[in-house]
Amino acid sequence: MILGLIMREMEKINIDTMFLGPKSENQDFFMEALSYLMEDHIQWRRDFHPHDNEFITPERKNTKSFVDTQNNIKDVLVKLSEKLKESSVPWFSPRYLGHMVTDLLMPATLGYMAGILYNPNNCSYEAAPITSAFELEVGLDLATMLGYDPKKAWGHITSGGTVANFEAIWLARNLKSIPLAVKEIKPELLKSDDDWVLLNMETEEVLDLISLLKEKGILEKVLDVSVRSKGISKNLGKLLVPKTRHYCWNKVLDIFGIGRDNLITVPVQDNYRMNITELNKIIKELADKKIPILGLVSVVGSTEEGSVDRVDEVVKLRNKYKKKGINFYYHIDAAYGGYARTLFVDSENNFIKYDKLSEIFYEESDIKTNYACPSLNVYNAFKAMPNADSITIDCHKLGYIPYPAGAIALKDKRILALLDYSAAYVDSDSDPAVIGPYIMEGSKPGASACAVWCAHKTLPLNVTGYGKLIARTIEASSSFFVGLNTMMPFVAINGKAYIAAPLTKPDTNVIIFVFNELGNTSLKNMNTLNEKIYNECSYVSGSLYNKPFITSKTILSKEEYDNTPKSFLNKLNISESEFDDIKEIFVLRAAIMTPFFADQKNFLDYWGEFIEVMKTVVAS
Amino acid sequence: MILGLIMREMEKINIDTMFLGPKSENQDFFMEALSYLMEDHIQWRRDFHPHDNEFITPERKNTKSFVDTQNNIKDVLVKLSEKLKESSVPWFSPRYLGHMVTDLLMPATLGYMAGILYNPNNCSYEAAPITSAFELEVGLDLATMLGYDPKKAWGHITSGGTVANFEAIWLARNLKSIPLAVKEIKPELLKSDDDWVLLNMETEEVLDLISLLKEKGILEKVLDVSVRSKGISKNLGKLLVPKTRHYCWNKVLDIFGIGRDNLITVPVQDNYRMNITELNKIIKELADKKIPILGLVSVVGSTEEGSVDRVDEVVKLRNKYKKKGINFYYHIDAAYGGYARTLFVDSENNFIKYDKLSEIFYEESDIKTNYACPSLNVYNAFKAMPNADSITIDCHKLGYIPYPAGAIALKDKRILALLDYSAAYVDSDSDPAVIGPYIMEGSKPGASACAVWCAHKTLPLNVTGYGKLIARTIEASSSFFVGLNTMMPFVAINGKAYIAAPLTKPDTNVIIFVFNELGNTSLKNMNTLNEKIYNECSYVSGSLYNKPFITSKTILSKEEYDNTPKSFLNKLNISESEFDDIKEIFVLRAAIMTPFFADQKNFLDYWGEFIEVMKTVVAS
Repeated sequence: MILGLIMREMEKINIDTMFLGPKSENQDFFMEALSYLMEDHIQWRRDFHPHDNEFITPERKNTKSFVDTQNNIKDVLVKLSEKLKESSVPWFSPRYLGHMVTDLLMPATLGYMAGILYNPNNCSYEAAPITSAFELEVGLDLATMLGYDPKKAWGHITSGGTVANFEAIWLARNLKSIPLAVKEIKPELLKSDDDWVLLNMETEEVLDLISLLKEKGILEKVLDVSVRSKGISKNLGKLLVPKTRHYCWNKVLDIFGIGRDNLITVPVQDNYRMNITELNKIIKELADKKIPILGLVSVVGSTEEGSVDRVDEVVKLRNKYKKKGINFYYHIDAAYGGYARTLFVDSENNFIKYDKLSEIFYEESDIKTNYACPSLNVYNAFKAMPNADSITIDCHKLGYIPYPAGAIALKDKRILALLDYSAAYVDSDSDPAVIGPYIMEGSKPGASACAVWCAHKTLPLNVTGYGKLIARTIEASSSFFVGLNTMMPFVAINGKAYIAAPLTKPDTNVIIFVFNELGNTSLKNMNTLNEKIYNECSYVSGSLYNKPFITSKTILSKEEYDNTPKSFLNKLNISESEFDDIKEIFVLRAAIMTPFFADQKNFLDYWGEFIEVMKTVVAS
Repeated sequence: MILGLIMREMEKINIDTMFLGPKSENQDFFMEALSYLMEDHIQWRRDFHPHDNEFITPERKNTKSFVDTQNNIKDVLVKLSEKLKESSVPWFSPRYLGHMVTDLLMPATLGYMAGILYNPNNCSYEAAPITSAFELEVGLDLATMLGYDPKKAWGHITSGGTVANFEAIWLARNLKSIPLAVKEIKPELLKSDDDWVLLNMETEEVLDLISLLKEKGILEKVLDVSVRSKGISKNLGKLLVPKTRHYCWNKVLDIFGIGRDNLITVPVQDNYRMNITELNKIIKELADKKIPILGLVSVVGSTEEGSVDRVDEVVKLRNKYKKKGINFYYHIDAAYGGYARTLFVDSENNFIKYDKLSEIFYEESDIKTNYACPSLNVYNAFKAMPNADSITIDCHKLGYIPYPAGAIALKDKRILALLDYSAAYVDSDSDPAVIGPYIMEGSKPGASACAVWCAHKTLPLNVTGYGKLIARTIEASSSFFVGLNTMMPFVAINGKAYIAAPLTKPDTNVIIFVFNELGNTSLKNMNTLNEKIYNECSYVSGSLYNKPFITSKTILSKEEYDNTPKSFLNKLNISESEFDDIKEIFVLRAAIMTPFFADQKNFLDYWGEFIEVMKTVVAS
């Protein structure tokens, strides 16, 4: 870390300092730090060529139009603030348990605000010398935390996970077309002239080939007959994604000209992780039919369920097929779950042994139960992540950073040669000091890099920092799960009895759950009940400001999930045939990102009130 | 404007109030307004369920780890501020005349900062009820200012102009494939079964067809055999862009699977506007060869030169070819120049008569010369803009808004049916109240919409607001042009004489210019001189903080511009054959966005110092 700071010697990082707080408890610190940053900037302006005169002189200020216009600006800002307060979502409160948003890391918010005044544009090094460096530094921080070799890896900030995923597919698609292009230009560099073999080269093998082409000075010539120049002229294969994918995966093949028909959605198990048996079957079928696979995507932290695909099992399968000459690009969409890998990384960046985890969580986080410790399967999935060719990881999700801040990490930066849109005289063999030529977007806020940099510098990317924060949220969501799972039927204010049920034990910190009237066996009725609960606990029924509990919802549909949701109905004594009829289960969904429930007392207070609220809401 | 405010009765908008100022002259207002917005948010948190206890109690704060961690946060923020001050670019100062950046509109900065704390995500209406509305409102403001019918148009904010241009090509490509898809599914709806005719349908005709398909309930079926689902299986035609295009146009056909070979770059005239004669020739040749045209792009405010393509002439040509059955999508990349259309729009949104302009500028802006009034050709180009199918316009360029804030405006929102990635039960016939399904990106900052909203509410999108601000900058750049153009040779401190020359009279507010030693006829020497000047006046020679003048550069290369730059050499007494040898002219480039030169006294002070500085720099 070139720009690294030496951190103060301190016993432990105190998470309480990191947020403005549900009751603005840290407001004094926030206002003081903000004033400092703003005044520092103000003084910077004044000190630039100190002898220059003021342009906006007291005389110019002392005019009616000046005063009028300034008053109008005030009116507009007051109006803005009113409108924001009137209808914004109170993410900051632990009473909000819905989408993947909560209070932001205060150092990140302050860093963003400081950055705005300098308005750097990370598209161009000249326009953002320091924040470009921040972006590459945090990109490499993330790559390293994800297990990549920092000497080979590269990472940067995107406007969001969607664009990060797009960049991955751009790379995967263009990479796939390289061996065929080499066949046209310099076939003697290839081991085979069989298209099937060429469409099944390993990522690393193709990258070695690219290095060789560079060495021979013919890379440009090859790129000129690759998909980049010629467009899609040949089927480059199928893209395999789990059914739990984010909806951007529905757009990606449209955008890249491959066509949505080439998307294969792999079924999931009833824990909403990709079904490896089905995946194996699909790969085998494609191989038998000689249909290439463009890429495979695993999801680490699915948007709806927070579930974590068995990356380790996928890696095994990929190795198995590698031996059979079947290869494909492997991307992990860890937009949501990526930062949770910090749970397993110690301060020296070693992956912690599983049997040490509970002890370390206990030591680091004052977490007294075993809940925060993810299952061995989840642990193994995270451990295997560095096997992927690229990983999407959103700072603005489990990184607790303000929008916009997605990110992508690449295992081997040699792949950037495919995207090099810089001038010919730039030496792309050396470590790229610039970002613009290697990314999809153009102008981009350096302020966002300031935010991520401040976050990573105050909350390290390991179990002493982020890991401990995220452990707290997993702890809380596990408590929530146990609460729902062990809950006895309760009597609501209408005199009827209700039960609750969680979908699965969460892999991360998202809980899906439903309420049902005791004895009800109709899916339709259960859906109506849960939709009513959602409406009561969301903007649908009016201002959020007075609501005691705010959540979100999703739908487990037959169209998306086939028969997977049926096993959930079994738990609720609703027959599977109901699902065949109704075709969807309306469920409640709570991403628990607040760190303020780790304290069991806080959680139990909340839980008690939650049940009381539900007694009214279900009967409403 | 549903969310409109009634503006205070005021004589005139005073531009001086709109910026923090080169000497932080408006710091008191800035700090006061910022504190107001922050404290309003802080109180909003405290007032949410006022009886809830504090989570971060005084006891929890009173621990060593709390104090230590807070001190570490302070260290990091201090470090951040130091690093930002050390190497950021002083855009705020009129001494900076380089890239398209200057001080930001203060209401926009404050609006962004207020927005961050609420952290809305405009990807989802539920996560951003008010800022989604802001985004659609400002999108429609822009579309209306650009001359579109607000009842039919649609607009929204993107992360930048690059993504806005990508969205346009996504639409253009998918639209092009619709008639062919209809031929497969329901040929009887078409007037012809000839592929050539189908690839040459007018945009509006295809949109009518889409409406019909919707009516008949078969749109989805058609989309399922269109490029979106099938990928690129047929050549959909060439994309024509001027040679002055932004570099994102080099990426776009790669990304969309069409291939860069399908990009045709149209030569420009020596005023760096697209050459209409050449364009005509290219279209004719393609038509003769029966090669379809996917789309045509005009640039309004080229990145390097600020030049404005003759949109009116392109429209004439397009109408001419329409009669011959040749049609194509027409997009304007007005990422830079879009906001300059406010120069010509009065407060009732009427396009002002050309002969009234000078008078109005005089009245509105206290501009005493005729300089600010663009030429009739530029006027006509802006006037014709509403003929385009879509327009990119960056709020973070001539909108004076912090990054990220690009935007796209669509003439006819029916086209969104091509991108509808929402669930099937959403009624996309009605005005879309949501943004997510119709855009390329996913999560996106609502704070950005707050910034644009505050800007548009305080500085209207017409000649009384933005127009007047931009007129000032055109005025200044014209003064700069006249200064360079009429400059006598000057003697530098080395005793040698030098001359200066501007490339062209700027269409907007970007000036390209060079210095040359009097009598020098070697292009190589001139290039060396100007590179030296650039190095002295940029980060290349060290910290910007002490530099009296900061600028940027570009290269007019034979590869990009063919022989166009030769006429510039004529002015400099350098023979054209030098260009054939050296192949590039190294030029200085100043985007004059600061509003503080409109006052002739300020400008002349600056100009005097600039010449003095150059006397040293050229001799360095």
